[in-house]
Amino acid sequence: MSSGKEGYSDLLKVVESDFNTMDQMIFGQLNSKVKLVMAVSQHVIHAGGKRMRPLMGLLAARALKDEPSSDAMKLAAITEMLHTATLVHDDVIDSSNLRRGEPTANATWDNPTAVLVGDYLIARAFNLLVEFKNLELLELFSAGTCDIAEGEVLQLQHQHNPEATEEDYLAIILGKTSRLFMLATEGMCLLFNQREHQQTFSEFSRHFGNAFQMVDDILDYASDSSVLGKNIGDDIAEGKPTLPMIRALSQTRDSDPKAYQLLSAAVSSGTYESIDAVIEAVKMTDSLDYCRERAMDESAKATGCLEKLPASKYVDTLKSLTQISINRIN
Amino acid sequence: MSSGKEGYSDLLKVVESDFNTMDQMIFGQLNSKVKLVMAVSQHVIHAGGKRMRPLMGLLAARALKDEPSSDAMKLAAITEMLHTATLVHDDVIDSSNLRRGEPTANATWDNPTAVLVGDYLIARAFNLLVEFKNLELLELFSAGTCDIAEGEVLQLQHQHNPEATEEDYLAIILGKTSRLFMLATEGMCLLFNQREHQQTFSEFSRHFGNAFQMVDDILDYASDSSVLGKNIGDDIAEGKPTLPMIRALSQTRDSDPKAYQLLSAAVSSGTYESIDAVIEAVKMTDSLDYCRERAMDESAKATGCLEKLPASKYVDTLKSLTQISINRIN
Repeated sequence: MSSGKEGYSDLLKVVESDFNTMDQMIFGQLNSKVKLVMAVSQHVIHAGGKRMRPLMGLLAARALKDEPSSDAMKLAAITEMLHTATLVHDDVIDSSNLRRGEPTANATWDNPTAVLVGDYLIARAFNLLVEFKNLELLELFSAGTCDIAEGEVLQLQHQHNPEATEEDYLAIILGKTSRLFMLATEGMCLLFNQREHQQTFSEFSRHFGNAFQMVDDILDYASDSSVLGKNIGDDIAEGKPTLPMIRALSQTRDSDPKAYQLLSAAVSSGTYESIDAVIEAVKMTDSLDYCRERAMDESAKATGCLEKLPASKYVDTLKSLTQISINRIN
Repeated sequence: MSSGKEGYSDLLKVVESDFNTMDQMIFGQLNSKVKLVMAVSQHVIHAGGKRMRPLMGLLAARALKDEPSSDAMKLAAITEMLHTATLVHDDVIDSSNLRRGEPTANATWDNPTAVLVGDYLIARAFNLLVEFKNLELLELFSAGTCDIAEGEVLQLQHQHNPEATEEDYLAIILGKTSRLFMLATEGMCLLFNQREHQQTFSEFSRHFGNAFQMVDDILDYASDSSVLGKNIGDDIAEGKPTLPMIRALSQTRDSDPKAYQLLSAAVSSGTYESIDAVIEAVKMTDSLDYCRERAMDESAKATGCLEKLPASKYVDTLKSLTQISINRIN
């Protein structure tokens, strides 16, 4: 992803000042009186990723109203706090020790601490949201946070289920990934009272998020660990039926019982041992091509939504961001 | 607590219709589209306790305005959802398999499910709160939920710390216990726009919650498990320095080095093995009497607050509830 990374930092420059202020706000808004809460929150936010959700929010805000807005920066910071909360709980759930090469909260402290600090981050995010005194925004984010938790539970429900369908998969990624991108941009429409663009941003972010997650899931079968910052085959090892697996299962079910058995057993049991054989079996089908097409399609739909917005360098940058995201599989 | 239990159901009768509607609302407001979310939520709420927080909220509501209020019932239901969310996460944290004799969510399903369903319950509680369109209420509850998470983290921070002070203890129980009682009653003042009683209810609930938690902590050293629905010595086993331990440590530090060593080591390591010896050593000091006095003092202060409210059978019932709560150690 070296080209992707270069591209990303170029995009950041378009809203650099907003972004830097936002980044400091994330830390500044953590004002717990409990030392351990501060230490853990700062650790996980510091170890955080590329801040893609707040970047998208800031670009949307500038596309709507091209002036610095501390409200927009604060809302972007809040989406990153919510994102961090879900990552902290995800790491507990997956018993992960590393995220992007950094020790996770549960590994550095312990599971109890990570669970509670995640809870604190959710509560603090709502507490900050209330400060906008905007009920529509609160309705959007509170309903969205339910959807996110539900998407994560749905993922658990289908862990080790070789019968999971593409429809199940889409419901899962809508909740666990796309929904927060949607909140990040739709929230700006409500903040600036520009409801006329909310639907467009909602659809753009949904397609963007879907493409983003599909790419991530393809890379689990196709990348090396230096690219992804996680190990190849993690989803296989955890018995998570993501799109590449779901497609490969449906393609082998009738035509190749031996491959189907191997894949089905891998999902049911979740094991590191047969990862190479599983990846090979998936690659023998049309699955990775199919998934790439599905991701490209979502990405194209996201780009299509952007056409409906007034042209600006910020909309162009959202287009580039969509492109960069899909570049990871090209 | 047989007399306490009888008393409790008598008190329930004072707001029986409100209470029953509220109890059904808790389930009715869970409308997740994800089956597993519904199953787990219903399990944990069904296995829930005496609904003491919503009962207190309903009594406060009637004390403020003596007519059936579906808003009050809904707010009471929301406090129970938040309470349930914290219990679900507590059980993950403590790796508890039983709560009130029923299997916990983490034991029935697993830790990941319990973490995520707890998250869903928090998000759903906020989503329902937003429906009141009352920003003061949202500010109160979102700040309160931060305090609750912080209190729980503070408790973790002091687990295995024999240097924990009474001040630390009070900060912990304020967050983990009293704060939600405060939300339950203060929320009603905001709902009915009767700010003039908010401070009184806040102080009443804080003292009530403090007394309630102190009694619980005393019983860990003094009850048998049939009374408490949990095992005697759990706090000792988990190395939690509650008030009885903190007092006993301070009383033995200079005068009885051998006892001090035993107690201090018990907190540091947290073990089931020396529980009997630890309880004996605590009972050799003035600790349990001191704790009873502290609990009685908090209870008396709670009752004192009620004098400031217009007399009614609901205020009388809040007084009885305070009395019943302290009866467990008499």
